[in-house]
Amino acid sequence: MKLNKSHTGFGGETRFYSHDASKTKTQMNFSVFLPQSGETPKSAIIWLSGLTCTEANFMEKSGIQNILAGGETMIICPDTSPRGLDLPGEHEDYDFGSGAGFYVNATTEGYKDHYQMYDYVNEEIYELLQSEFKVPADKISIMGHSMGGHGALIIGLKNPEKYGSVSAFAPIVNPTQCAWGQKAFKGYLGNDKEAWKAYDACELIKSGHRHPTELLIDQGAADEFYPESLLTNNFKTVCEAHNQKLEVNLIEDYDHSYYFIASFLEDHVAFHLSHFE
Amino acid sequence: MKLNKSHTGFGGETRFYSHDASKTKTQMNFSVFLPQSGETPKSAIIWLSGLTCTEANFMEKSGIQNILAGGETMIICPDTSPRGLDLPGEHEDYDFGSGAGFYVNATTEGYKDHYQMYDYVNEEIYELLQSEFKVPADKISIMGHSMGGHGALIIGLKNPEKYGSVSAFAPIVNPTQCAWGQKAFKGYLGNDKEAWKAYDACELIKSGHRHPTELLIDQGAADEFYPESLLTNNFKTVCEAHNQKLEVNLIEDYDHSYYFIASFLEDHVAFHLSHFE
Repeated sequence: MKLNKSHTGFGGETRFYSHDASKTKTQMNFSVFLPQSGETPKSAIIWLSGLTCTEANFMEKSGIQNILAGGETMIICPDTSPRGLDLPGEHEDYDFGSGAGFYVNATTEGYKDHYQMYDYVNEEIYELLQSEFKVPADKISIMGHSMGGHGALIIGLKNPEKYGSVSAFAPIVNPTQCAWGQKAFKGYLGNDKEAWKAYDACELIKSGHRHPTELLIDQGAADEFYPESLLTNNFKTVCEAHNQKLEVNLIEDYDHSYYFIASFLEDHVAFHLSHFE
Repeated sequence: MKLNKSHTGFGGETRFYSHDASKTKTQMNFSVFLPQSGETPKSAIIWLSGLTCTEANFMEKSGIQNILAGGETMIICPDTSPRGLDLPGEHEDYDFGSGAGFYVNATTEGYKDHYQMYDYVNEEIYELLQSEFKVPADKISIMGHSMGGHGALIIGLKNPEKYGSVSAFAPIVNPTQCAWGQKAFKGYLGNDKEAWKAYDACELIKSGHRHPTELLIDQGAADEFYPESLLTNNFKTVCEAHNQKLEVNLIEDYDHSYYFIASFLEDHVAFHLSHFE
């Protein structure tokens, strides 16, 4: 694990690391905020970013440092895909390949060797929180935005024992039913649509997956991708039908940007902190 | 004045505008945060950004929206230079030309026709706050970072009657004595070093300029450009010698980045708000 940069802020440290990741067989980048320099954090939140993001956007734009300042909870933000490769079609579109790993374990030729973002987050980042940052395994939660909200929901629903709570901003809740998800899943998982269901939050609920705590979703009503790509109501309907507790806040005037995330991030952090207690 | 984008956040609106600027004879970009949608702000702070920045960086990275939320003070952030030109040498270096207007009125061939950033901020932006945003002229203050901290200091010192208070993060206080300033002033003002003094905060104090209120400067002690390019102590010395009230906070561990600005921005806003009362 190599520390590339560290910035003091709000009494803590925003750090940028790279490491040789076994799951992706590439060097991967991630960032952390440690709220008290020199202190071991007592809990951690994993943040998963959306399409086109790197490990930097959230740290630069969300205001998370101010929210976690002085506390005992760290945050870790992995990059959204492997980098440094040149697979067929990897760099052509913003919504597939680099910057768009979609938090799945790819099975298609070429991508299957590196695009193992589901395992990378759920195993490698999760274990690194314990080994490198000394966070107890029962004090880890997960959240994210858009594609990263999708990642948080599917990882949390498939591994309820590993994550104390799960929340999302404007998540892609039903990727098998929107263009973004269909394109990505075809590219990473092939044409067998049955295989796609293992990475679709709505389908996971239908097939019996649950998280014991209420899930939290904030969705801007003025989001340029709502409802076509985000399909929030589909998730609401299946959660109601299958007894998964869920709070959805549909918020007037807010869009898909970091201005939206920053405005409600403190609520999400408080939500996760309440489950660490 | 054309509204290009508006993002709701923290109950207010971050807006990006462009307009045909008479001082630069170009289209100029600026951003604002209006803390309460539909309400006329009662006061305004002008933020001047540093080298390489546009009108966007501060709005994206500083957390200003959270700080001003629910209040009656707006902020306006102009771009750091004219755009859309192709003057000799304008786009070759990060520290001269585009993204590096240095808040002076250029007198050199080519640049003198457009790089009138001093007048653009002090006259055009200042008047636009009153005409377009209905802010009273006696409720305007100014602050900035690095090159923009230099801009805030020189504009405030040369026009004490127009700005209620002046503050800066890691400002270039003595540009005639550091490489950044010398390069810019030579390019914009020519070889006559006497002419440079009109845009150097230290020289302005020496030649009798004062601001009636205490000036506030925060400077990170781990700033990669301190002390060589920022020369904070030179300003401290001349202010002491010439009875200009000044508070300088030298802050251990903090660098030149937005993580530094964000950490202490609330203090600066409180400082300006206290002078509006």
